[in-house]
Amino acid sequence: MFLKSSKHIPQLTVDCVIFGFHHKKLKLILSKLKLEKDIYALPGGFVLQEEDIEDAAKRVLFERTGIEDVYLEELGTFGRANRISDEDFQLFSHLAKELYPDVEPPINEKNQKMRLVSIAYYALVDFEKVIPKKIDLDESCDWYDSQDLPHMIFDHREMAEKGLEVLRDNLDKKLLFNNLLSETFTMRELQELYETVYDKPFPANNFQKKILDLNILERLDKKFTGAKSKAPYLYRLKSNLSNKG
Amino acid sequence: MFLKSSKHIPQLTVDCVIFGFHHKKLKLILSKLKLEKDIYALPGGFVLQEEDIEDAAKRVLFERTGIEDVYLEELGTFGRANRISDEDFQLFSHLAKELYPDVEPPINEKNQKMRLVSIAYYALVDFEKVIPKKIDLDESCDWYDSQDLPHMIFDHREMAEKGLEVLRDNLDKKLLFNNLLSETFTMRELQELYETVYDKPFPANNFQKKILDLNILERLDKKFTGAKSKAPYLYRLKSNLSNKG
Repeated sequence: MFLKSSKHIPQLTVDCVIFGFHHKKLKLILSKLKLEKDIYALPGGFVLQEEDIEDAAKRVLFERTGIEDVYLEELGTFGRANRISDEDFQLFSHLAKELYPDVEPPINEKNQKMRLVSIAYYALVDFEKVIPKKIDLDESCDWYDSQDLPHMIFDHREMAEKGLEVLRDNLDKKLLFNNLLSETFTMRELQELYETVYDKPFPANNFQKKILDLNILERLDKKFTGAKSKAPYLYRLKSNLSNKG
Repeated sequence: MFLKSSKHIPQLTVDCVIFGFHHKKLKLILSKLKLEKDIYALPGGFVLQEEDIEDAAKRVLFERTGIEDVYLEELGTFGRANRISDEDFQLFSHLAKELYPDVEPPINEKNQKMRLVSIAYYALVDFEKVIPKKIDLDESCDWYDSQDLPHMIFDHREMAEKGLEVLRDNLDKKLLFNNLLSETFTMRELQELYETVYDKPFPANNFQKKILDLNILERLDKKFTGAKSKAPYLYRLKSNLSNKG
């Protein structure tokens, strides 16, 4: 998750809600922390003194997914004074101290817990291209179902929920769907993505008409499935509309 | 603008773009700093260690306008590493030092300028109710035309422009217009607000139809102007839709 040194801005972090779409599920990347209890965290970290905030988010994203140039947008500031409970603070600082005895602990001169403000981002990645990578603090790092989130540290669940809300607002308006699919996709795959994100069915004929009327897709050859006649067409976003990275 | 002490988070500030509407102009509040050159700044300040970030923005807003419970929303983080030029830093820290010789200067142990990250907000207030208040750093504090901004310190002009962009996006969608008008208004006043914010004319009949079709306004008595027959109707947002504060 994060570790602070004098090279970092003292009380400011970034956290990333990294979404991927797989088998009709909208997934996000979580770390299972090395703790006795099962507690999960969003990928995040401190911001370097010389680093733009957005570059800090890109760095975290790259560390955890190995990919760059993906869709990334700010969700907002998580800045409640009490966003980190005493219990979460104890658990986390104990873990950090064990792993990195030389690193400055996140406490002030009076030995009180240091307040942290986090700038949250959401990112959209092609699930097929990403194998989540753990860091020292993690027992594991993997994809989890956004509809069935485990117990999360700090206010990370609120961040995940805000990410989902903003994704719903923007999927259509900002044509974000192509960031969650492979470069080419069938109409059925696109519809399944919409049904998953909005958590409701879209009648197939209406959906196809609505999407094609937007005049944003390019139809390609049929997907090869063995039975040519029944094969669905492949589509991709028109190249002049691309909004990747 | 801001002064930091040990009670504050070291490298984090808030800044507010406070909009008001007057005589067909969209205005915002700026401080003219006590400097030889004419340099202006948005109202802002450091965040107290015990204070929610949003409460810091509300505090700044109250200090400068004397009012509370107004529409306030986060614009985003201004977090470029080089957002404060050396020249602006010199000017501002010199001024702060003169006024407050006892206050910790915004430099690090190596005597280098300290990087500041700012969370920007925008607020919508009733122009008639607000007399901008200056603080010690200001020569004056007043309303300025958002279409004709003076030279601003740091990246404050970008914040003002982002505020205008977000206001345009949201005026209609989030029914924000009532926050910029008195509680009751004529259709003409509402139209003038739209024309000002979007900087284009709206044909009167179309505009009235479009707004009334939204079914969000309540029609009240005619505005008293002396000539009753020609007096325009007054409207207000239906009370169940209010989004103030």
